[in-house]
This record gives sequence, structure tokens and C-alpha cells, in this order.
Amino acid sequence: MNIGLLGFGVVGKGVYEITQQRSDMQVTHVLCLEDIQLPDAKVAKDFREILDDETVDTVVEAMGGLHPAYEFVKAAIEAGKNVVTSNKALVCTFYDELIPLAKEKGVSFRSTAAVGGGIGWLSELERARRVQKLQQVGGIMNGTCNYILDNMTRLGLDYSVVLKQAQQLGYAEANPSTDVDGIDTWHKVILSANIAFGVTVDKETVPVAGISRITAEDVANFKAHGRICKLISTGKCVDGVYSVYVQPTLVKDGEPEAAVPMNYNLITFIGEISGRMSFFGQGAGRYPTAYNVVQDLVDVLEGKSFYAPYGQKVSADNSEKLCYYIRGGKGLPAPATEIWGNAAITDRVSVSAVHAWLKQNPEAFIAAL
Amino acid sequence: MNIGLLGFGVVGKGVYEITQQRSDMQVTHVLCLEDIQLPDAKVAKDFREILDDETVDTVVEAMGGLHPAYEFVKAAIEAGKNVVTSNKALVCTFYDELIPLAKEKGVSFRSTAAVGGGIGWLSELERARRVQKLQQVGGIMNGTCNYILDNMTRLGLDYSVVLKQAQQLGYAEANPSTDVDGIDTWHKVILSANIAFGVTVDKETVPVAGISRITAEDVANFKAHGRICKLISTGKCVDGVYSVYVQPTLVKDGEPEAAVPMNYNLITFIGEISGRMSFFGQGAGRYPTAYNVVQDLVDVLEGKSFYAPYGQKVSADNSEKLCYYIRGGKGLPAPATEIWGNAAITDRVSVSAVHAWLKQNPEAFIAAL
Repeated sequence: MNIGLLGFGVVGKGVYEITQQRSDMQVTHVLCLEDIQLPDAKVAKDFREILDDETVDTVVEAMGGLHPAYEFVKAAIEAGKNVVTSNKALVCTFYDELIPLAKEKGVSFRSTAAVGGGIGWLSELERARRVQKLQQVGGIMNGTCNYILDNMTRLGLDYSVVLKQAQQLGYAEANPSTDVDGIDTWHKVILSANIAFGVTVDKETVPVAGISRITAEDVANFKAHGRICKLISTGKCVDGVYSVYVQPTLVKDGEPEAAVPMNYNLITFIGEISGRMSFFGQGAGRYPTAYNVVQDLVDVLEGKSFYAPYGQKVSADNSEKLCYYIRGGKGLPAPATEIWGNAAITDRVSVSAVHAWLKQNPEAFIAAL
Repeated sequence: MNIGLLGFGVVGKGVYEITQQRSDMQVTHVLCLEDIQLPDAKVAKDFREILDDETVDTVVEAMGGLHPAYEFVKAAIEAGKNVVTSNKALVCTFYDELIPLAKEKGVSFRSTAAVGGGIGWLSELERARRVQKLQQVGGIMNGTCNYILDNMTRLGLDYSVVLKQAQQLGYAEANPSTDVDGIDTWHKVILSANIAFGVTVDKETVPVAGISRITAEDVANFKAHGRICKLISTGKCVDGVYSVYVQPTLVKDGEPEAAVPMNYNLITFIGEISGRMSFFGQGAGRYPTAYNVVQDLVDVLEGKSFYAPYGQKVSADNSEKLCYYIRGGKGLPAPATEIWGNAAITDRVSVSAVHAWLKQNPEAFIAAL
């Protein structure tokens, strides 16, 4: 296998290093705008050099961002090259176009590292689907948020202090919005639901609430009631009805989610035969992520294409009712049944109603119980 | 695929039910000594009926026990049939013979359900091995022990009370020795180490300590020091030295192992690239176990053989030093550094020395810190 590697940053360099140890694949071209030299690969500044080279059978996209990653990946597929990417935003945003296109062109398209980093989550879904219907997917899919929430809980520190630490340690970006506002998790759960249920979830119908408004006082309220806050994604399929959402969620001490430390992920599916299966590992980082890119490359060599058939478009129906912790905002989306410190616990109310209320009250913090 | 199913108990019946929903495989023969009738499969009381039928290409062994399971499986391989089994004692005991024989005969041999029940653990090791060297395997591999320890910890009950509950609920056998004395876990970690490291560990060199001597007082001692007791298996490969052992182990509240409830398993590998990856799920039960038997059958259809090459025989070297909680017995295998209630915490001492001491003091209870 001759690989054209797009990007030579954190993940790209890891992929290059791992493939150097293998005899069944080699990176023959690297797209990199910086002036680097590699002993065994041609460094290109123009993607066309890779696209037009017929010896390159597989493109690994490790640039990140939507553009020009999208244009490059699409052109590679159209040219009959296999594509492996770790770019969740790309796959989620252009799912409708890229998945059918890869099938039409008869090329492999894999993106295991896009969800769960070192956890082979999308491959786990592919394997599970061989034997059973999946009923639920989700969990802790973002290491940055888990790092922040875990440190706030253990040390009682405020959000801004922990965020700054996370940024200094490289666990959070300078602009952390994609992580802390839940966008990263939102992409991941939509992609997971698409594959688990064999559908294409309308992204506009999937609400997301992040963690950026959580305070040390909130965490103290949770602790006083034996709860721990995690950013949890949920995708369910019950009797043909799909519910998909991302929100801070209060888990009980002793539940597996409560014990997830630092920047780890814990992702779960529930299958009609296997029951609950959960996967715990590094959700990001050079080597864990590059590891699953290379796993995908091995799967491409074994002839695997995408994880699931491309399926019909469906809307999420989030009429499921839950109780919520709500602090701030005007009024409440449902009557209060308890008061925790300066916050209210609501009666059971639909997920969609709470997220609609939150749009009108963006200064509020919510967490499902 | 035409399947000869040996045994129609908990797992066998589950396999039969799941395959009935599929078009790519069917159970055509069932070996069952009871008088049952099946609409779509021939019920045989003599294994030769299945062995001599050339239309049967794959044998699923779901009888349990070593004999005649061993004789049947060996004969099936020799007759050129693929074999799938969930019988960890069988695979572990006759590893030396069955794995090379299956290779010689060019048939598939799979036993994913033998470790972790619903967790596809051995398949996970096979996948991980494609891209990296494994450094460590192990964890909570026995649901019966975890159920007992979890209930003792949460409810403060004594061992015998919880064991009786577990037996009434079907989580423990009438004779629980295989589970509570750690034999089941011992088989599982040896099999895991064989596959993870591509070796054949000499079973005689792998020590095991079980949980049957734990008391409510021990559990109270652990709680007072922020620890929780779990039966943990360990298999390590460091610089070509293999250490493999099974023993009660005190984990800290907040560690993933501490949060494993009821009869669940949590099994972990550490890979040189991926880092720590853990798998959480039902370690036993009809459908979780049958699920992975059917996953194996799908892998057989895809041409997969065994998980790893058959490797050289190695002895476990358990000179690794740990501190131990020790209650009972004559003297101590190492000087005490602390006293917890009626028990001592020892200075660091080799795993092998403690297990040798335990053989001379079978009334003692030990747990590694």
C-alpha cells in the first residue's frame, strides 16, 4: 500500500512513524507546507502531486478543518483512491456526500480515529452490527471536557482555573469552544448514530449543551447530592424512533462513567443480544489516534469499506422526558421539585423543551439527572 | 455454513436461537443427550453422527468440561472441521496440542467467548496485535467473584451470605470453587497472555489466590483505608520477561476497576502505541456468551483462523515486588509496615514469595496493594 499523507502535525507524524515499522504499507508522499525533508517519502506542497500520482492508492487525511480537507478527500475518492481520516467534523458534515461517493467509486473509506481516538469505537460498531441490532450509543467522548470536569470535581477548582491548566498541558486548545461547547461530541455522536443505526441523522435536530458555564458552586451542589457531572452524548433507537443529544449529565458515584479520570473517554453501546459494552481509553493524543489510523489502513488492506450501509435521512425526536438541574436563566422549562443550593431540580420535562429553553437563556447551566 | 452444535444448555441454546435469524449459517445438527425435537436441526445422541457428516463444516462446542469436549474437538479438527468454543478450561489445558493441530489441518479455531463472555476480548487482542506489541493484559475476568466482592463492599455482608445470594440468583454454581478460588480467572489470563504475547505460558508457573477466605472484617479494613478489593489477573511482558498471576487486589476508589458493579467484567490491555484500553461488559450469561460464539462464526466465514501464532513455551517469572494485606497464617512472608485491624501490611515482597507462603498457610487471606 502506497500512502499519500496529508498533513504532518500531531497525528500525521504519528502515522508516518508507525508505518515506518511495517512492510505492508509505506508513506510515499507527504503533503506539508513547511520545509521538511524525509528519507523515504516525497514532500509535496501541492495536493495535485499526490492526486495525480497513480502509485498512491490510499490517502490519509490528517490536516483537520473542513477546507481544503473536504476538497482533497473528495478528489481522492473520485480518483479511485482509498481514504482514511481522523477528521470527525469532515466526515460528519459531508456524510451525505462522501459515504455514497466512496461506495459508488468502490473505494474504502474509514475514520475510526474520528471517535474515541485510541478506542476503535467505529470498528466496534461495525463488528457489533454483524450479529445484532444496536439500541443505544454514547458516553464520554471528549477528553478535554472530562479533564476539566474531573479536575473541578477532585480539586474543587473553578472552571476558568482548570481550563487554563488544561491549555497549559495541551489538553485544551487556545480557543476551546469546539470542545467545551460540545461541538466535538456532537459530531461524534451523530457519526456514531449514523453507523450504529444505519441512518443519516439530520444534524439540525440534534441539540447540544456544553460545559463552559459550569461553576465550582455547581460542582459543590452535585457533590452534596452524591453526583458527578460528565458531558454525555446519547443516541437511541427505540421502535424506529431516534433520539440524539449531547448534554452535561449527573452520574452517581459508583457508576462506570463516574470513575473516568483525566482526559480518558468511556464510550458505550447497548446491543439487543450483547447488552451493555463499554470501551475505555485515550480519546486523543498523537499515538492513540495514529494507532487507529493505521488499524484502518490494515482494514483497507483486508478489503473493508465503510462501517455500515448509507441509510435514510431521519430526524431526532427528543421527546424523552428527564429531570434537570438548572441554574440561571429566566424562569424554568418545568416546575421545580427540589432546590440544590442556588439551582433548581425540575420535574420530568422533554429533552427538546429544555434545549429550546436554553437557547433563550444562554447564560444558564443545565445538566440532566 | 453448516454447524454441528455440541450441547444445548445455556450457551448452546443461545447460539441456536441467534443463528436461526441468519442466512449465512445454520445449525444442522445438535448433540444433546436429552429428548428434544428441533424443527430445523437433527438431534444426535452420538457425536459420530456429526463427525462423519461431511456437510457439517463447523463444530460449536458448548458442552463445557474437559471430557469428552477435548476428544470431540480434537476429532473435529482432525476431520477438517472448523471449531468454535467458549470453553476456557479446554482451550487453556490443551493449548499446546489444539492450536498447532488446527494450524496443521488448516481449519479455523476460535474461542472469543472463553474470556469476557460478551466482551470480544480475544478478538480485541488479535486486532491490537496487528499494529503494536502488547505489554500487559488482565483485569476483572470473573463475574461471580466481582458480584460477591461488590455486594460485600456495598452492603457490608459476610462472604457466606453473599455467596448464598449469588447461588440463588444463578451468579454462582452450587460448587463455586472454580470461580471463587480463581481457577476460572487463571485459565483466562493464561489464555490471554498466550495470545497477547505469542507464547505458551507454563501453567504450573502461574500462581493463583482466590477470594473464598475474605471476611466482612477484611472489607471493613479496606474501606477504612479507601480501598476496594477485586480479584485481578495480571499478565506482563517486560523486556522478554513474563509475569503472570491472579490475586485479590486492593484498588483505590476512583480507579475504573473500583466502579465495576455486580457480575460485570473490566478487562484491560496496555499496548506500546495505544496505551491503556479497557473493555467493560457482561462476562457471562446466555446471550452475551452466545453473541461472541456467533461473532466467531462470522470470523470463520471471513477466513480468520486463530488469534496469534502458536509461540514458544515460557515460564512466568513473578519476582515483581508488591506490598500485601495479609490476615491469618503463621508469621508473614515479609516484615509488616502497617497494621490494618487484625491484618498486616507487608513491606514490598515478590509475588512468588507471597504465593509460596500462602501454599503453606492456606487459611490466610492475602490481597496485593
